Amino acid sequence: AGDADAVLAKAAVCAACHGQNGVAMIPMYPNLAGQNETYLVNALNAYRAKERNGGNAVIMQAQAAALSDDDIANLAAYYASLPAGG
Amino acid sequence: AGDADAVLAKAAVCAACHGQNGVAMIPMYPNLAGQNETYLVNALNAYRAKERNGGNAVIMQAQAAALSDDDIANLAAYYASLPAGG
Repeated sequence: AGDADAVLAKAAVCAACHGQNGVAMIPMYPNLAGQNETYLVNALNAYRAKERNGGNAVIMQAQAAALSDDDIANLAAYYASLPAGG
Repeated sequence: AGDADAVLAKAAVCAACHGQNGVAMIPMYPNLAGQNETYLVNALNAYRAKERNGGNAVIMQAQAAALSDDDIANLAAYYASLPAGG
């Protein structure tokens, strides 16, 4: 449970742009609910490594910079587990 | 209808990785169905401009290089219109 609580606390930050249920109300931000887990891990790693640029990447680079490998794995698993479309 | 047929022809290439219904069977590729349209336009532009790197970006850079602005707009609208989760 500790792990689940920790993820929910981290996801609270993501929810500001990506929505409480992983469906972003703001069209320039992606929906994350039901997204493929490995893709999410790769995307977060690319933001953290500042390999992903363009669009709103600078916002995500700052967010990802604060995430550990475990955070990335847990958040990717969490959002992949949410029902696509909310 | 001409426009719709043109998009479906373009999307046939995307379907190889992103699935016929925009749900990718391969976990390292993202689902596109029901994704936010503006985000998809930004992502395709970033791949085309080679601003997006890391993960499997090189695959998408090659795909996006062949797309016109209209292609990008039409494909983004098409995938955003598909039901999330397939």
